[in-house]
Amino acid sequence: MDVTILAEAVKSGDRRALARAITLVESAREDHRAQARALVAEVARAGRQALRIGLSGTPGVGKSTFIESFGCFLTAQGLRVAVLAVDPSSARSGGSILGDKTRMERLSRDPMAFIRPSPSQTHLGGVARRTREAVALCEAAGYDVVLIETVGVGQSETMVAEMCDLFLLLLAPAGGDELQGVKRGIMEMADLILVNKADGDLKPAAMRTQADYAGALRLLRRRPQDPEGFPKALTVSALEENGLAQAWEEMQTLTAWRRAHGHWDSRRAAQARHWFEEEVRQGLLARLTREPMRGVLHSLGAQVAEGRRTPDEAAAELLGQLGA
Amino acid sequence: MDVTILAEAVKSGDRRALARAITLVESAREDHRAQARALVAEVARAGRQALRIGLSGTPGVGKSTFIESFGCFLTAQGLRVAVLAVDPSSARSGGSILGDKTRMERLSRDPMAFIRPSPSQTHLGGVARRTREAVALCEAAGYDVVLIETVGVGQSETMVAEMCDLFLLLLAPAGGDELQGVKRGIMEMADLILVNKADGDLKPAAMRTQADYAGALRLLRRRPQDPEGFPKALTVSALEENGLAQAWEEMQTLTAWRRAHGHWDSRRAAQARHWFEEEVRQGLLARLTREPMRGVLHSLGAQVAEGRRTPDEAAAELLGQLGA
Repeated sequence: MDVTILAEAVKSGDRRALARAITLVESAREDHRAQARALVAEVARAGRQALRIGLSGTPGVGKSTFIESFGCFLTAQGLRVAVLAVDPSSARSGGSILGDKTRMERLSRDPMAFIRPSPSQTHLGGVARRTREAVALCEAAGYDVVLIETVGVGQSETMVAEMCDLFLLLLAPAGGDELQGVKRGIMEMADLILVNKADGDLKPAAMRTQADYAGALRLLRRRPQDPEGFPKALTVSALEENGLAQAWEEMQTLTAWRRAHGHWDSRRAAQARHWFEEEVRQGLLARLTREPMRGVLHSLGAQVAEGRRTPDEAAAELLGQLGA
Repeated sequence: MDVTILAEAVKSGDRRALARAITLVESAREDHRAQARALVAEVARAGRQALRIGLSGTPGVGKSTFIESFGCFLTAQGLRVAVLAVDPSSARSGGSILGDKTRMERLSRDPMAFIRPSPSQTHLGGVARRTREAVALCEAAGYDVVLIETVGVGQSETMVAEMCDLFLLLLAPAGGDELQGVKRGIMEMADLILVNKADGDLKPAAMRTQADYAGALRLLRRRPQDPEGFPKALTVSALEENGLAQAWEEMQTLTAWRRAHGHWDSRRAAQARHWFEEEVRQGLLARLTREPMRGVLHSLGAQVAEGRRTPDEAAAELLGQLGA
């Protein structure tokens, strides 16, 4: 595969080229990996940046409906929107928004939108790299907004927050008691909390929930990357398409402030460094899964299991052999 | 320090030597580490094994009282008992059972018992190594039972379970609703669930809670390392010293079965191998914090942060330099 030609096609906005490029970065094959790395480096020279929005919410809060409505709202403003999904859970095969894509009927037919189902899962490190690289490809392809959906489980939210400019938490209306249901760590990552389903019978509950979270957010310490009044809690109705304009306005206000105060750039820089260091760590540990280290690990491990050496003696010997 | 002399003193059952040896394995100094490794390897040749019992339970369930009562029960049977604590939480300085030691008044004066407060905390990897090595020292010193207490937070329970022969979960009496309060992962690690405070007004609630957990345990899949009927849920009263004999009998039944069926040895072997591999991983990653890698990581990281290289390009270069 000629990486330069593919890179040019991606940068020209060719959707099929973008899809092919993402397939390349998803591949676990060694030769594909080298090509993928070259491809991402090549398109990065374009220097295009999209607004990267992470979206989290447990199943049932209406994430697909929100992405459909919000995505169509954005394309109606003349913005190009890419949607990616992160689903590292091993229990679900085939990816989380494959099925959702049929539920995002309008958005998936919209020529201004690009929806990419999550690939069959691999380890979280692999998911993170694939998603970061897919984001970079979408940016190079000229998308203005990249929405990254994550299911609210495990480490995937932290991972997505580490590659986004904005992090949205989508919630369903609930009684005050359920405020506890959102982990504090997730609350602290959120830039906007959107209480969905503010329609019909649920509207009063949604408004109460919004008020509860607004109160809870005020109790958190102000973060340096936020202007006065942020993070905010808002109500939306993805179904009736209410509140989307206000939510978008808040996102723009927050983004403009962060850009003006240097937080956008410094956050992107810190994220890039974080992922570099993470790749180095993963790469170092990968040595243990390859020969000759794999064999040494195995035979020393057997001696340890038999009690002929202590774990720490054997580890010191192996690390000595590695020159570590 | 002469490691051989210290090892001999530990093996002779000298309590002060044991305390000094544990202080050595707790040290972060490079030269101490080498001595500690030699010491642990030296005493391991004695081949003595204690019954290692992990004990978990959230604050308020009566862990200190239980350790005091159960420890004294065991010493009254002629058994020598060592108590260690694991507390990796950074919020608490000085260790968790320093204060508890004064509450374990009887046990701490018992010549058959040895209580070691947890050291001022370090990272979880360091805590794990220190605890493993302290356990090995206590075994070499001739203790029959080593109780390892952990607070029910974070990864510390998993870590303790990975170094124990038996894992006990201590609970307080509660309404049926609170069954949810115990994380499924913890339930699955437990060999015995002990509902404490089965005394006075709380006795009926303790019995209900015990019945609830007994029911819940029956819903879990039988583990290969368990005979019929295990894991079990029992009631105890640490305060009135009721139920301790039965709990101990169940522990002995379970242990005897595991010994007879090879699970004891295979578990110890798997644990040793696990800790060996963990030490290797930590040791490998530690290279990144030392020169020359630290400097390379820093300068490449700066280039990544400035957008002059992608995270993956830079990581590939650094790993190439490491020969990884």
